[in-house]
Amino acid sequence: MTTRRSFFKSAGLGIAATATAPALINLSAAAAESSGANTTFKLGIAGYTFAKFNLEEALKMTRKVDVTYLCIKDFHLPLACTPEEVTAFHAKCKEYGVIGYGCGPIYMETAEAAKTAFEYTKRVGVKTLVGVPFKKGANGQRVENQELLELINDLVQEYDIKYAIHNHGPDMPELFPSAESCIARIKDMDQRVGICLDIGHQLRDGKDPVKAILDHHERLHDMHIKNVTEPTKKGRGIEMPRGAIDMTAVVNALRKVQYRGVCSLEYEKDMQDPILGIAESIGYFRGIMDATR
Amino acid sequence: MTTRRSFFKSAGLGIAATATAPALINLSAAAAESSGANTTFKLGIAGYTFAKFNLEEALKMTRKVDVTYLCIKDFHLPLACTPEEVTAFHAKCKEYGVIGYGCGPIYMETAEAAKTAFEYTKRVGVKTLVGVPFKKGANGQRVENQELLELINDLVQEYDIKYAIHNHGPDMPELFPSAESCIARIKDMDQRVGICLDIGHQLRDGKDPVKAILDHHERLHDMHIKNVTEPTKKGRGIEMPRGAIDMTAVVNALRKVQYRGVCSLEYEKDMQDPILGIAESIGYFRGIMDATR
Repeated sequence: MTTRRSFFKSAGLGIAATATAPALINLSAAAAESSGANTTFKLGIAGYTFAKFNLEEALKMTRKVDVTYLCIKDFHLPLACTPEEVTAFHAKCKEYGVIGYGCGPIYMETAEAAKTAFEYTKRVGVKTLVGVPFKKGANGQRVENQELLELINDLVQEYDIKYAIHNHGPDMPELFPSAESCIARIKDMDQRVGICLDIGHQLRDGKDPVKAILDHHERLHDMHIKNVTEPTKKGRGIEMPRGAIDMTAVVNALRKVQYRGVCSLEYEKDMQDPILGIAESIGYFRGIMDATR
Repeated sequence: MTTRRSFFKSAGLGIAATATAPALINLSAAAAESSGANTTFKLGIAGYTFAKFNLEEALKMTRKVDVTYLCIKDFHLPLACTPEEVTAFHAKCKEYGVIGYGCGPIYMETAEAAKTAFEYTKRVGVKTLVGVPFKKGANGQRVENQELLELINDLVQEYDIKYAIHNHGPDMPELFPSAESCIARIKDMDQRVGICLDIGHQLRDGKDPVKAILDHHERLHDMHIKNVTEPTKKGRGIEMPRGAIDMTAVVNALRKVQYRGVCSLEYEKDMQDPILGIAESIGYFRGIMDATR
């Protein structure tokens, strides 16, 4: 027999709690999302999704799909921002019940640029910096920068900020295409140097997003969730239920390793008018989260 | 270790097969949805969701969220339609990869109206008629009509068409508010007389949608899926992840009883501009379906 209790949601009527922007946003210490207790990780949106929109428009869309966490892109809060602008930024987020939980991705080529990015992240008051350390290759292309990573290994300790390298698939084969290419360079560093696993680019690079989660969860500091049409360079972004990645396997892997960060949707289809695809994708991932509690 | 196979979807890249409109649409014989084999039931949209839109607009929205099955409302295909109009209707659906799989809800007061509805359903070429048989009560209100149900019990046999009574919650307490009120009147009839379980109205009536599925699955001929804000008459439609019904429990119950019909989203919020809520809700339900295979 089904009791009355079993057909109501355990955490009330699904009304999102009003979010606040704490002075220092440390997700590992934050409470679980209001929509359920048995979840270690949170659902968010990566700021790049809103590349064609200003902050207020981005926040309206984020609220519209009932999402609380936003990874801050510099086009919404510039690296040169003042403390007053940071305060105004968080106040604006709070108006919409949104929390900016991390920064990036930020590309950086020099020691000065790396230092600037860490100072920015500290000023913003968050504990996660998604970044891509590069140098110029022989043909002018961007390639991985081990020297800069060594400096970043010092900076994560100095600032106590996690640095998450964003993998970008086969489009930039010499600049962290996969989780594995990141780990190869950082495996002996401080554990705060890790990855922001972009599962779409991971698949486009012919690599397994699920295996990356299971193998490298100790350095998994952020996640860009999305789906893509095929596991090759030709793969393009698509509404999450319709792509090649088995999202249930991804969520089950995150549960298995007790991932405690954010899964941020980076939706790269219809970027001039993304809200419909965002809604379907957020709904889909949330459905899998709820079904696998 | 995760094999390559495990991170791709088993049924290909999620590209929907082009749907065709067979002369006679019998879902119990239809193939499972393209998005996975281990599912007996299908995802659809109830035509009432598009009450403010013409057929072409409704089909565009249905396609936009990658849904194949539509329950046909008479404002999109009138009861007095000709066979030529039926052919044109199915052709229009086919343009958008949509299949009209059933008709209704149709309210009916007289034997003539019931006969008209069965003739219409036969002409449309589908096997499920969602209906509400009523008579006028002492105060002019609509109340349940047992005499008409007895006639309908003959008609389901004459036409070999399933008749699914739609429950409508506490707004019409004398006209099938709950699954249980339907079953009380039809429990000794031909099994083709059954219910279209509206889980939102069921909850608003203080009844358990999950228990209704488990108890009455043999007469469960159609489903209106939705979520509502609270389990009382005050409950209103809301985006599916945000309501009071535990949708995972609903899907698990449907799997347990091996429901073979359609789960049609009847989205009743923002009816002038419903597409965003439809996208989030369809995404959410599909996520639960995929996660519970």
